[in-house]
Amino acid sequence: MIVAPTTSRTTTAPQVLARCRALVGPALVRAVDRLHPWVGEMAAYSFGWCESGGAPTGHPGGKGIRQALAVLAAEAAGAPAQAGVEAAVAVELVHAFSLLHDDIMDGDAARRGRPAVWKAYGTGPAVLAGDALYALAVETLAASPAGPEALRLLATALGDLVSGQADDLLFAARPWTGPERVRPEEYRTMAEHKTGALLGCAASLGAVFAGAPPETVTALDRAGRHLGIAFQIVDAVLGIWGDPAVTGKPAHGDLRERKKSLPVLAALDTPGPTAARLAAFLQSAGAADEAGARRAAALIDEAGGRAAALAEAADHIASVERVLGGIPLAAAAAGELRVLMDYMGDREV
Amino acid sequence: MIVAPTTSRTTTAPQVLARCRALVGPALVRAVDRLHPWVGEMAAYSFGWCESGGAPTGHPGGKGIRQALAVLAAEAAGAPAQAGVEAAVAVELVHAFSLLHDDIMDGDAARRGRPAVWKAYGTGPAVLAGDALYALAVETLAASPAGPEALRLLATALGDLVSGQADDLLFAARPWTGPERVRPEEYRTMAEHKTGALLGCAASLGAVFAGAPPETVTALDRAGRHLGIAFQIVDAVLGIWGDPAVTGKPAHGDLRERKKSLPVLAALDTPGPTAARLAAFLQSAGAADEAGARRAAALIDEAGGRAAALAEAADHIASVERVLGGIPLAAAAAGELRVLMDYMGDREV
Repeated sequence: MIVAPTTSRTTTAPQVLARCRALVGPALVRAVDRLHPWVGEMAAYSFGWCESGGAPTGHPGGKGIRQALAVLAAEAAGAPAQAGVEAAVAVELVHAFSLLHDDIMDGDAARRGRPAVWKAYGTGPAVLAGDALYALAVETLAASPAGPEALRLLATALGDLVSGQADDLLFAARPWTGPERVRPEEYRTMAEHKTGALLGCAASLGAVFAGAPPETVTALDRAGRHLGIAFQIVDAVLGIWGDPAVTGKPAHGDLRERKKSLPVLAALDTPGPTAARLAAFLQSAGAADEAGARRAAALIDEAGGRAAALAEAADHIASVERVLGGIPLAAAAAGELRVLMDYMGDREV
Repeated sequence: MIVAPTTSRTTTAPQVLARCRALVGPALVRAVDRLHPWVGEMAAYSFGWCESGGAPTGHPGGKGIRQALAVLAAEAAGAPAQAGVEAAVAVELVHAFSLLHDDIMDGDAARRGRPAVWKAYGTGPAVLAGDALYALAVETLAASPAGPEALRLLATALGDLVSGQADDLLFAARPWTGPERVRPEEYRTMAEHKTGALLGCAASLGAVFAGAPPETVTALDRAGRHLGIAFQIVDAVLGIWGDPAVTGKPAHGDLRERKKSLPVLAALDTPGPTAARLAAFLQSAGAADEAGARRAAALIDEAGGRAAALAEAADHIASVERVLGGIPLAAAAAGELRVLMDYMGDREV
């Protein structure tokens, strides 16, 4: 059952992503073209295809991780890449919807270096554009022969996305210490729902469209969920210790925004004097300025928060490998799937 | 094929609605109970079941027109009422979602005499609660045996809802006269999408869950769409000439808000000097205060806008009757369906 190493291929993740974008892109454009023209412009803007007002950017948009997962999963399940295209379109639409609505909820004014849709078009129109993308995803799957099972997977992912976003929003109002504090296991659940569910959905939908057996579908969903948790944790580590020149975000940004991310939560959960000092420091809003944030980052590190987070991300990546190793997959596509998953889970930290 | 008159029943619309609410209510509560607790509270608040904070109101919520359409359509198609319950739950969830998001888009701060969800909980949380209701509707249908066809109907209705709302939002920015003006036929399309699509979806989903043949499903969808257009037109007439004591809205409110509703558009589309005077008056923002709005209402009436709108609403109600008369339906349920549709299309104007 073990996936054979891809000795014969030296494909890189950017190459894999580009191949899948080339395959899925036209179908995604055709889907968005079915929208009401004004709503379709907002959708195209959110994908990075046009400026506000509709002028084309000539840009293909985001990396397309989710569409690639769907296509590669279809291939890994033994079907031609084409079999995963409708699944890929649906998950990219859902991803775009969730970014659009999350930016409203989180008050994030910029996305990929441009004004977020709600900043460029207004909050109401951005709510509508998100709804439209969501409806289009449902329509895409409802029209497909994989119908009911595909829609059950999508509905589960959508429900999880909402739960994850709800928990993430509620974490902000909870205290750093005491019985109401956010536990590391709550963070894990949030990360699985907010990030893992759609990655799992992408991979499992690809398999459903390939006609894969239920064990393969379930395994790919689980692999995507582990990958999502790892990705979110690595993101959290980068949000504290990442190089602003690489991340494009301010140094220690997540600490200054008081985000309850795993490195902090793991540090606070470690018995000992450093955790207590960190808690007191965070409660006093000591991390609000750059010097304070640097001090908080040092305390988190000293309490073992960074190491614990990175160890946990590595564990989830190992789980991805283990889960994929337990099902029969076509070697070449499974190799590319691993290249992509490694690329996502193993960014420079 | 003509539906037999219901001589043996003297059921009123409020009785029909109460019967359907009693049947669907528990299933709807169970569905909402599956949501994330915080999101579920917002959903329950939006249904009128609880206050902000979660204290129960002891109130059953809205009238439940859409759930009743689904249940009655299932019965009219020859199935027991129970067969329509999942369809009823799904359409009530979609309706709640659309009210929630529309209130954000339209900036409506109140709904049914209480603060709108976005006023009570904030815009971001309200966006999320709408998304959750939407996801729950998809999940409800995806889990049902009627699966793929039901989801195709829902997806079409969702797409239409978005288009209708987009057009309605865009109408506000368009001029009263000239080539860019809103034509009455554009209003009809908007009304069909914004109001008719979900009523048609409710009725047709009920029929699908009853295992009805495609002609019955299509006819019930068409009947619901005609009903929706009639309902929206009657609403527009009430928005200008309705008694504030009955409508709960300010006199001539739609004129003061410069809404491009059918009576105005029909008046402007009538050749003659009154239409020209009305156009000049509206362009000068003459209807912004109560005296001006009264004057505009008189001009619309004089140009025939009220009569044209009411005639058109009556036409659509006649189409409902004709469409329902063309398919074989169980007499008792079809009679109740007519009672309900008459109730909706024939309010005091």
